[in-house]
Amino acid sequence: MSKGKTKKNEYSEKKPPDEFLRVVPLGGLGEIGKNMMIMEYVTRTSHDSIIIDTGIMFPDNDMLGIDLIIPDFAYIMDRLDTIRGVIITHGHEDHTGAIAHVMEHVHAPVYATAMTRGLLEVKLDNAHLLDQVTLVTIQAGDRIKMGPFLVEFFHVCHSIPDSVGLGITTPVGLVVHTSDYKIDHTPVDNWPTDFGKLTDFSQRGVLALFADSTNADVPGWTTSESVIDEALDDIFVKAPGRIIVATFASLISRVQQVANAAQRHGRKIAVQGYSMVENVKLARSLGYLDIPSSQVVEIGAANNLPNHKVVIMTTGAQGEPLAGLGRLSTGQHNDIEVEEDDTIILSSHPIPGNEEMVYRTINKLIQRGAEVIYDPIAPVHVSGHAAQEEMKLMINMIRPKFMVPVHGELRHLHQHRKMAVDLGIPPENIAVVENGTMLTFTADSMEVGERIPGGYVFVDGTGVGDIGPIVLRDRELLGRDGFVIANLTLDRDTRQIIGEPEFISRGFVYLREAQGLMDGAQDVIIDVLTSDGDTSQRTIRRKIEKQLGKYFYSELKRRPMIFTFINEV
Amino acid sequence: MSKGKTKKNEYSEKKPPDEFLRVVPLGGLGEIGKNMMIMEYVTRTSHDSIIIDTGIMFPDNDMLGIDLIIPDFAYIMDRLDTIRGVIITHGHEDHTGAIAHVMEHVHAPVYATAMTRGLLEVKLDNAHLLDQVTLVTIQAGDRIKMGPFLVEFFHVCHSIPDSVGLGITTPVGLVVHTSDYKIDHTPVDNWPTDFGKLTDFSQRGVLALFADSTNADVPGWTTSESVIDEALDDIFVKAPGRIIVATFASLISRVQQVANAAQRHGRKIAVQGYSMVENVKLARSLGYLDIPSSQVVEIGAANNLPNHKVVIMTTGAQGEPLAGLGRLSTGQHNDIEVEEDDTIILSSHPIPGNEEMVYRTINKLIQRGAEVIYDPIAPVHVSGHAAQEEMKLMINMIRPKFMVPVHGELRHLHQHRKMAVDLGIPPENIAVVENGTMLTFTADSMEVGERIPGGYVFVDGTGVGDIGPIVLRDRELLGRDGFVIANLTLDRDTRQIIGEPEFISRGFVYLREAQGLMDGAQDVIIDVLTSDGDTSQRTIRRKIEKQLGKYFYSELKRRPMIFTFINEV
Repeated sequence: MSKGKTKKNEYSEKKPPDEFLRVVPLGGLGEIGKNMMIMEYVTRTSHDSIIIDTGIMFPDNDMLGIDLIIPDFAYIMDRLDTIRGVIITHGHEDHTGAIAHVMEHVHAPVYATAMTRGLLEVKLDNAHLLDQVTLVTIQAGDRIKMGPFLVEFFHVCHSIPDSVGLGITTPVGLVVHTSDYKIDHTPVDNWPTDFGKLTDFSQRGVLALFADSTNADVPGWTTSESVIDEALDDIFVKAPGRIIVATFASLISRVQQVANAAQRHGRKIAVQGYSMVENVKLARSLGYLDIPSSQVVEIGAANNLPNHKVVIMTTGAQGEPLAGLGRLSTGQHNDIEVEEDDTIILSSHPIPGNEEMVYRTINKLIQRGAEVIYDPIAPVHVSGHAAQEEMKLMINMIRPKFMVPVHGELRHLHQHRKMAVDLGIPPENIAVVENGTMLTFTADSMEVGERIPGGYVFVDGTGVGDIGPIVLRDRELLGRDGFVIANLTLDRDTRQIIGEPEFISRGFVYLREAQGLMDGAQDVIIDVLTSDGDTSQRTIRRKIEKQLGKYFYSELKRRPMIFTFINEV
Repeated sequence: MSKGKTKKNEYSEKKPPDEFLRVVPLGGLGEIGKNMMIMEYVTRTSHDSIIIDTGIMFPDNDMLGIDLIIPDFAYIMDRLDTIRGVIITHGHEDHTGAIAHVMEHVHAPVYATAMTRGLLEVKLDNAHLLDQVTLVTIQAGDRIKMGPFLVEFFHVCHSIPDSVGLGITTPVGLVVHTSDYKIDHTPVDNWPTDFGKLTDFSQRGVLALFADSTNADVPGWTTSESVIDEALDDIFVKAPGRIIVATFASLISRVQQVANAAQRHGRKIAVQGYSMVENVKLARSLGYLDIPSSQVVEIGAANNLPNHKVVIMTTGAQGEPLAGLGRLSTGQHNDIEVEEDDTIILSSHPIPGNEEMVYRTINKLIQRGAEVIYDPIAPVHVSGHAAQEEMKLMINMIRPKFMVPVHGELRHLHQHRKMAVDLGIPPENIAVVENGTMLTFTADSMEVGERIPGGYVFVDGTGVGDIGPIVLRDRELLGRDGFVIANLTLDRDTRQIIGEPEFISRGFVYLREAQGLMDGAQDVIIDVLTSDGDTSQRTIRRKIEKQLGKYFYSELKRRPMIFTFINEV
C-alpha cells in the first residue's frame, strides 16, 4: 500500500508485457505465519510456476473454536498444471503446516532439506498422501532446475536446523528469498548464514529481494545463540534439584545446548512430550543433534536418579494447557510432578496473544514451589529472526533493484520498508502489500497489481472452510452471554399455553440460583400470549424473543441469544 | 507460600497474642490489579480497622463475557463496625474501581488527595452514593488519626498525579505501604518520591514494608518520564501532518508532556475521548495540569486548522475497539478520520493479554496510511512502576523487619522476595502470600495464617457474583463449538415421531450449507427412536444427545452442546 498505491491500477489498464514474472504472496504478509507464495513465469506461449512454502497460521484469541488457518489457494488451483516444484524452506509449522492440503491437489515434486523432509513426511503420512508425493532431498549449495527457474539453495541460520534461503534465476532476473533467517556468527551448529552466496548474488545483480520482516521493530542485532550457554551454566551451577527446560519442539539447537550444559554439569537428559521426542529422534538420526547415547535417559529412569543429576526437556513453553509444562503446572502430568527444589526454565518468548497463558503457567509453577526462570530474569532465549541491523546488512549485501518485505504483520513490513528507504532503495521500488496482491516483474519494472479475491480459510476439526464470519460471530455472542431457549405448548384453537414453559439456558446465569429471574421470564411469556394482535406462530415467537431480550437486559444488562419453540396441540 | 509455608498452621494452633495487628490482602497479590487490603488492630477489648484501596481487576481473555472482577470482601462485611477509615492511594481503576461496591456497606470516611477524590466522586455519583459518603481531602505530608492508626501520607511518583504511599503507626509498630510507585528524579511535575519521609520512617524503625512488585522482573531502573520529551521532539520535528497521541486517560503527566511539545513546536492541542476529556478537565481545574487556554482547541476547531498545526490526544492505546484509537483504526470515529500524513503515537505498553488487540489496531492504522510510532520504535512510553534497582533502593531505605511484596502476579512477588533476600532480609521474614491470607504481626513477629475463603467476584452486566465456574465453562464450550437443539414431537402412545425434527444451531456450522449433515442428524434420531429399549422421555432424550454428539464428532471433529426437546401429543 502507501507508496505502491499510485501504481495500483496501472497494470490492469495496460497490456501485459510479452514475458513477465508474477509473484503472488498467499500468506506471510500482514500477519505472522501462514507463509506461502507462488512465482509464475509467463510468456505468450508458456506458463510455469513454483510454490514456495505451505504454511498455516494459528488463530487469534477471538477466532473462537478455530484450530488453524490455511491460505486460500484458489489461485493455485487454477494453475495446477503449471507447477514445476514446491519448495519448503524449513520445518516450522508456519511454512509446512498446509503441505497436505496443498499436495492433495498439486502433482509436482517437493524440495526440502533432510530435516525439513523428515517433518513433512510425518504430515503427509498422517494425511495418507506419502505414497503419492515425490519428495526430493536437497542441501544448501544445490542448484535445481524447475522449468524455467534455476533455484539455488543457500544456508541461513534460524531456530530450526538446515533452513535455506533461495536464489531463483528466472528469465527476467534473479530473485532472492531469504525465508526466515538471522545472521548469527556463533550459531550452535557452527554453520553461519552463507555470506558468500549472498554477495555472489549481489555481484550477479538481484532483480528483487523478498526478505523476512518478523523482527523489523526490534532495534540492534539479535543476540547469538551462544549467549544462552552462559546463562545455562549460571543456572546449572546454582540449581539444587532437577532442571526442567521447556522450549519449542522444533528448536533442536536449544536441545543441543541443554544437552551440552547437562554434560558439562554431570546431568543426564530426558526428553518428554510427543512432538519433542519425535523431533529429537529425527534430528539425531539425521546427524543434526549430537548427544552421546550415554547422556540420554528415559523419563522413567530419570525419575530414579538423584534430582541434581537430571535435566528434563519438554514442550509447552507457550503456555498450552495440554503440553508438557501446562500439565506440570496443573499437576496433571503423567510422568513428572513439580518438586520444591525444581528449577524450571522457559526457553522461549511468548508469541503475541499467548502472554496471558504463559504468565499464568509460570505463576502456577511458582505456586507449586518451583523456581521459574524466563527472559528477562535471565537471557535463556533469543529470537530466530534478524533484528534491524541484520536486516540492513541483508539489504546492503544484496542491493536489489526491487524489494518486497515479507513475513510479519503489516507494522513489520512497513518498518522494514522504512529501513530500506534509509539505505537508499527508492520508495517506489519497495512493495508493502497484503496477501493476494499480484506483483509483476519484468527485467526493469515492478508493478503492484490487483488483489485476488480470497484470504483466510478456517480449519475447525475436519471442516476446512465451512466456518465463516457468521458462525464466528455467533460463537462470540454465545461465549459472551450464552443462550436461553423457551419451549412452550399452545392449544391450537385457543392459543392458550398448556402447562408451563420449559427453559434451557447455558452460559447465561446459574439457573439453579436464578429462580426469581426465570419466574419473571415466564410472566413475560404469559404477557405476550395474552396481549392482543396477530397470533400466528411466527409473530408470537418473534414477540416472545424480543420481550425476553428486553427483560433479561433490564434485569442483568446481559444479552443472551434467545430462541423459542412453540408446539401446538 | 514457599518459605512461609512451614509456619502456615502455627497460628491456628496457637492462642492469639493479647494484642496484634492483622493485615489481610483481599486483592493485589497473585494478579495485576484489584488492590485492596484491610488492616486490623485487635486487643482483648478493642477491634479497629482501616481499608486501603478498593480496586478492580480486568478479566483475562478466557473469562468470557465478564466485565470486571472485584475482590470478595465478605471478610470486611463481618467487620463493618470496626472500620475507622478507607484510604485510596491514587486514582487508577485497580485501586478505586470497587469504591461504590464497598461504600454501599462501609460508613467510615474516605481519605484521598484532591485528584483521587475527584475521580472517586464520579464513581460514587454514578452509584447514587455521593450524598451518603464522607470524603476527606488529604495531601502528602498530612498525618491523620484513624482510631488507633496514625496515617502519614507521603508523595510517590506514579503514572497519575498526586499518588501517595502510607506510613501507618500502629500500637505494635510502624508499617510502610508504598502503593504503586517509581523513583523518578526528573518527573514531569518536578515532584519526586519523598525520600525524606522514607528515611525518616527508617530511622523510627519499620515493622513491615508492603511494597509494589509490578515490575519485579524488569532489570535496572525505570526510565525517567523526561526521556519522553526528547522522543516527542524528534517526532514533532519530522511529522508532516497531524500528530495523534493515544495514552491512558489517567496519564495526566503524559498529556502535560504532549501539550508542552505542542507549544514548543507551534501546534494546538485537542483532547478527545470521554474519560480523557473528563480527567483533563478535572486535572486542569485542580492545578495538576498546566496548559494555557490559548493552546487548547475543540476537536471541531482542530479539524479546521492546517494539519501540521494540530496535536490530538485520545484514548484506546490498549487496542480497545470502542475507544478513540480503535474507532480511528476502523474508520468509525465520529470526529476524526485517519489521513495519509498523520503520525500516530501509542504512548503506552500493552497490558499482558492486550497485545493482539494493540498490534491489530496498529496494523489497521498503518493500512489507512498513517505513520505509527510505538515503543520500541521510539521511547514514547515509560512504566509507572519501579524496576528492580528502585525496589532494592526502597528496601534499603526502609530496612523493615518484615516484608510483604504486594501488587503483581505471583511471579513478581516471588522475584521481589528474591531481591529482598539478596539485600539481607531473612527469608523467614518475607511473606509471599496469596489474596485472603491472614498476616498477623506483633511488635516482633509475623505469622502467615490461614487463607480465608473467597476470592474472585465476577461482575457481568449488573450481576455481581452470580457467575461462577460452571457458567464460564459453558461459555467456553459454546464459544468453541456452539450448540445444536433438536425439537421433536412424539405420539404419546406409539412413541413414533410426528413430522420431522426441527433443529436450531448457532456457532456450530453454517446450517444453510450443511443440509447433508442435518439430514444425517435426522437419521440418527430416527435410529434412536426405532431402536429397542426404554422409551421413557428421559432415556430417549439422553440417547439422542449422546448419538448426535458421536455423529457430529465423527463428521466434523467438533463437540457442540446438544439438547433435545421432546413434546408428546
